[in-house]
Amino acid sequence: MQIEVLPSAGSPRLPYLEDKLVIVIDVLRATSTMVTALANGCQAIIPVLTPEEAIERRLSVPGALLGGERHALPIEGFDLGNSPFDYVPERVGGKRVIMTTTNGTRAMRDASVAPLIWMASFLNMQSIVLAILRLFETNCRVRGIVVFCAGTDEQFDLPDTLCAGMLIDALSTNVTLNDLGEAARLLYRDSKKHLADKIRQSVHGQRLVSLGLERDLVYCSTSNILPIIPVFENGEIVWLTKG
Amino acid sequence: MQIEVLPSAGSPRLPYLEDKLVIVIDVLRATSTMVTALANGCQAIIPVLTPEEAIERRLSVPGALLGGERHALPIEGFDLGNSPFDYVPERVGGKRVIMTTTNGTRAMRDASVAPLIWMASFLNMQSIVLAILRLFETNCRVRGIVVFCAGTDEQFDLPDTLCAGMLIDALSTNVTLNDLGEAARLLYRDSKKHLADKIRQSVHGQRLVSLGLERDLVYCSTSNILPIIPVFENGEIVWLTKG
Repeated sequence: MQIEVLPSAGSPRLPYLEDKLVIVIDVLRATSTMVTALANGCQAIIPVLTPEEAIERRLSVPGALLGGERHALPIEGFDLGNSPFDYVPERVGGKRVIMTTTNGTRAMRDASVAPLIWMASFLNMQSIVLAILRLFETNCRVRGIVVFCAGTDEQFDLPDTLCAGMLIDALSTNVTLNDLGEAARLLYRDSKKHLADKIRQSVHGQRLVSLGLERDLVYCSTSNILPIIPVFENGEIVWLTKG
Repeated sequence: MQIEVLPSAGSPRLPYLEDKLVIVIDVLRATSTMVTALANGCQAIIPVLTPEEAIERRLSVPGALLGGERHALPIEGFDLGNSPFDYVPERVGGKRVIMTTTNGTRAMRDASVAPLIWMASFLNMQSIVLAILRLFETNCRVRGIVVFCAGTDEQFDLPDTLCAGMLIDALSTNVTLNDLGEAARLLYRDSKKHLADKIRQSVHGQRLVSLGLERDLVYCSTSNILPIIPVFENGEIVWLTKG
């Protein structure tokens, strides 16, 4: 199985994606929050690039909530921030959420020509791994995986890279990797016993701690608690119903 | 000491460089070859972006040689390739070399606003580390280090990242790092006992092996054999005469 890891949204050179499964990872916090929202009954998430686009989009989606962040802070006038703890059943159950985040949404848009786009985080990694193994047993149209780490400010992000490493490590040794994939696997194997500490020490982790959001960080560092595969289809992120 | 590592030439976002020492790393093979050329008596290396620019530039530098590569192969009509073994004393002693390489030269140009630009490789790392320690003791204009990994095809490159990690590891624990700096340090510490193997397994390493250039790879993976600090000044790369 061929796996290529890209370091950040806005990568200058995208690989050929038309026959790839794309896995988008934005541990702090977009994909972690999306997984949580769907687990809590959110009907769909509509990712958009800017707050202005979110407001305009709401006009055509009656009853939708607005969610997201800019530089880790909530957006004025929005219903929800980017904290997974905002996306509780009482708020998002049965609702659509139009969501804009700095890095995660951009990565999703960059990936949009791929036939399959799934969202991963530590929270749902085991389900992602099992779904990938099923997919590659049954679907011969998909010829490899490209992992889009969302990154931070268009830069390499250690939490996203560790999460990519966890995915690669779980897919066993029978994989062909680019250099960043090899690095991600080594970094994950080196750090897996103290993941939350490594994530806390990262630049993005330190920013969240300084904003009083350590609870989010600890939650987003937790592995394999949500059996959800969010997929991006027809402009919306929804549960995967068939593998 | 603050150290920021950038993954590849053509990084979309450059940090503020006006008060930084920039260290350019292109293990396979530009900076390794430049260090070797200077150690073998080459007077200066003039880095240029394209073969056409190299040919034009020679008109104003009488007696200069042309060197460099495109996609790891020599350029037709040039005197020297990008192999360090081309840059022997009999060829380059007392000469200027106008050199174009895919990634290394671009990284140098990207860094050109910095007050100090040095070239590092495994070959000269110990000298680089000692010169950095001297510099930060005596020069208070320089407020940090930015490491430009040249990368491969604008992508993360494991050999360059390992070399950046060696630099960070040698500068002791009293450093503030961006996420890629932290990753580089972890990767180096994990791999330092089998550096040549890790470099051979990288995408760029495998490309060199497939082209029959394994000798270059083994040489470029050798640590601390050349006491040379190449500096980029006034458009030329020369020996550092004062630290």
